[in-house]
Amino acid sequence: MKRILFVPIFLFTLFATAQTEVESTIKKIYQTALVDGQSYAWLEHLSNQIGGRLSGSLNAQRAVEWGKEELDALGLDKVWLQPVMVPKWIRGTFEYANIETSPGNTINVNVCALGGSVATPLAGIRAEVVEVKSFEELSALGADKIKGKIVFYNRPMQADLVNTFTAYSGCVDQRYSGAEEAAKLGAVGVIVRSMNLRLDDYPHTGSMSYGDLPLRKRIPAAAISTNDAELLSSMLSLNGKLKFYLKQNCKNLPDVQSYNVIGEIKGSTYPEEIMVVGGHLDSWDLGDGSHDDGAGIVQSMEVLRLMKKIGYQPKRTLRVVLYMNEENGQRGASKYTEIAQQQKEKHVFALESDAGGFTPRGFSIDTTPEKLKNIQAWAPYFEPYLIHLFVKGGSGADVAPLKTDTNVLAGLRPDSQRYFDYHHASNDTFDAINKRELELGAATMAAMVYLMDHFKL
Amino acid sequence: MKRILFVPIFLFTLFATAQTEVESTIKKIYQTALVDGQSYAWLEHLSNQIGGRLSGSLNAQRAVEWGKEELDALGLDKVWLQPVMVPKWIRGTFEYANIETSPGNTINVNVCALGGSVATPLAGIRAEVVEVKSFEELSALGADKIKGKIVFYNRPMQADLVNTFTAYSGCVDQRYSGAEEAAKLGAVGVIVRSMNLRLDDYPHTGSMSYGDLPLRKRIPAAAISTNDAELLSSMLSLNGKLKFYLKQNCKNLPDVQSYNVIGEIKGSTYPEEIMVVGGHLDSWDLGDGSHDDGAGIVQSMEVLRLMKKIGYQPKRTLRVVLYMNEENGQRGASKYTEIAQQQKEKHVFALESDAGGFTPRGFSIDTTPEKLKNIQAWAPYFEPYLIHLFVKGGSGADVAPLKTDTNVLAGLRPDSQRYFDYHHASNDTFDAINKRELELGAATMAAMVYLMDHFKL
Repeated sequence: MKRILFVPIFLFTLFATAQTEVESTIKKIYQTALVDGQSYAWLEHLSNQIGGRLSGSLNAQRAVEWGKEELDALGLDKVWLQPVMVPKWIRGTFEYANIETSPGNTINVNVCALGGSVATPLAGIRAEVVEVKSFEELSALGADKIKGKIVFYNRPMQADLVNTFTAYSGCVDQRYSGAEEAAKLGAVGVIVRSMNLRLDDYPHTGSMSYGDLPLRKRIPAAAISTNDAELLSSMLSLNGKLKFYLKQNCKNLPDVQSYNVIGEIKGSTYPEEIMVVGGHLDSWDLGDGSHDDGAGIVQSMEVLRLMKKIGYQPKRTLRVVLYMNEENGQRGASKYTEIAQQQKEKHVFALESDAGGFTPRGFSIDTTPEKLKNIQAWAPYFEPYLIHLFVKGGSGADVAPLKTDTNVLAGLRPDSQRYFDYHHASNDTFDAINKRELELGAATMAAMVYLMDHFKL
Repeated sequence: MKRILFVPIFLFTLFATAQTEVESTIKKIYQTALVDGQSYAWLEHLSNQIGGRLSGSLNAQRAVEWGKEELDALGLDKVWLQPVMVPKWIRGTFEYANIETSPGNTINVNVCALGGSVATPLAGIRAEVVEVKSFEELSALGADKIKGKIVFYNRPMQADLVNTFTAYSGCVDQRYSGAEEAAKLGAVGVIVRSMNLRLDDYPHTGSMSYGDLPLRKRIPAAAISTNDAELLSSMLSLNGKLKFYLKQNCKNLPDVQSYNVIGEIKGSTYPEEIMVVGGHLDSWDLGDGSHDDGAGIVQSMEVLRLMKKIGYQPKRTLRVVLYMNEENGQRGASKYTEIAQQQKEKHVFALESDAGGFTPRGFSIDTTPEKLKNIQAWAPYFEPYLIHLFVKGGSGADVAPLKTDTNVLAGLRPDSQRYFDYHHASNDTFDAINKRELELGAATMAAMVYLMDHFKL
């Protein structure tokens, strides 16, 4: 009896000790992030002193230089800029729209050009409007009814989906391919309902593509605020012949030189195994990109700072990548992956934060079923911090290209309810950030990096 | 083999069918709340058209009448007002404070009287300041060093606690009993650091008590904003002899008549078994009480509306109680409990929402270990809605008095990170509410009520 009893007690003691070390390291991470964090002050600077930083803009270059300086100041083992050519699109000097309910009788509405759109002619375009909710509806109407018209895509985000990103996925085809599809049927422009679950006055921009339409066939595309989408739809139901006027002078320019900003702490035991944390340094130009993705940038930087602050020396190389050009090209991610492959780097883990600086709920994880199961077994370590989601799913646009058969990719999953209130709109500003929510996200990322490094998966 | 296989398949089918009914009802609840909800429009009215509604005020009476009207409009089986006498404290016409760094050299600071405080003399009080972090520190200083001074309680909320309510509990003694303790040592007034995790300019009010101190011994008490608490502390470190000036003319008046507002749907099978959902209708006077506790009021009302909307007839009687006077007396809760006991009512379940209108995370549950375990077994039903907390703990100030040895009391637990940014301050206003977060809270309450009614615990 004695002997039989001895074994489990001994094992339990070992296990308990091991747990305590892991638990106390994670506790130290959270405490440091909440009491002595840097992420909020960093974001204040990035948002308020730099601001919106669309790829190719002078502000994007200022952000690159700021990122490099701040990483340099952390005393990492290596900090460098990785050159990458990025597209340059500029909003131009005006964007303007109105509904003409009868000749001379107009109501101004809130619009913004979609990223990548061509300009209207200098005099603008004025045309009748055809409202549709889907490409099926568009194609059923056919060229006869579309030719010479402005197509108004008005399928709203589905309010009953708890995950707002799912609702976004269900709508974003209108923004991304709406102009291409409408142009094929002879439309002269498109207006897209903003990807926003709220009814408000902010138009939300975002990337769009003309596919392989030749230049002369490309038509201007703009987003309209949800309030004005409702207004336009309601007016159309009373007067199907009303006209819409749109004027914008945005422009695509030649590619320009930019950079990913990279810093790393060399691994003590397995330096050739690389763990990446990252977000994207570029943003849209309307707000200051605090949630998208300033939050992810400062959280990723904070992961490395926290490790140094608590005196944890990673066994694997821990790298932060501030990706350029996620929003309209993902050139930074492509370049980073290309170089990594050239240099035969082994990325064992990559974690992206690009879903807003809200209270973290967990992770979406892309790996083998066995590794997913092993990670899910860590859930108890996260319980004190109310982190409960460890679901199989996509990681993020910037780290996804690093996928191999064996590595682990993940995306931080914050609470998603408020994200699309701000996404790509002029109200994505620093005041929409809560300090503690931001800090909890950084700590949650750092805890996951620590666990990945501490345990062998 | 066939026979052996048959049994589990059959059981599985039965179980699958049963699950489907429960799952689909819960899905309908969430969908209706998110797509066709009433809580946000109700709160808009309560916050913007009525506003702050301190017990005994005319606005509290307007809120009572609004609540009764709205419940009447729902077509419940019974709606009534339950009379209750409530304390009446008024803020008065001015509250003002400054730091006098040298004679004639003053800096204004943001203060507000604590609820229940006496006024200063008409000319105000001007005195030296003693800063303390705890009652222990106060008592160690003793009457010698406190007499004639203003005591400044400056222990901040602990930032490293993930549950901000725990941080609040660890500080609120300063606000509640600070004046009583300081007065016993001869202080002439107290200034309390606002219970706020952010550094900002809003003073946060809240209830305080003089214990059994006689009237002539009572000293004025005010909250100071966190920014100004930091300022005062920093200035004190440079000049320990600086003076603080406080002037306020708040006042306690005789009790006045008010009401709990109650509505119910009679149970179809066990009408004598009562399930309560509720929040408190009164609020502090500084903001409009959107989070505290307008959110809980409209969510509770929404629970009954959702049941009717989806056509669910509860087997037990479902009652909504809009409690009066939670903030400074809990007279509504006492009266409701007193009447319930008189009438030998059997409350099997009571659920309170009084922790803000933020994304719901789960429930804090006060019941027997067996029933807690049974409730925790329902977690999978809540998983699609990201509800994951089913912890043993307190319910809420208003429903707690209903406790018996066998019933279930619970409190909705929303994400707590932002709650104390607004709590009892003038920025607790409707614009701080996110529609979806509010609606998810209402749906989560309704789903729990449905499960409590559907299953026999």
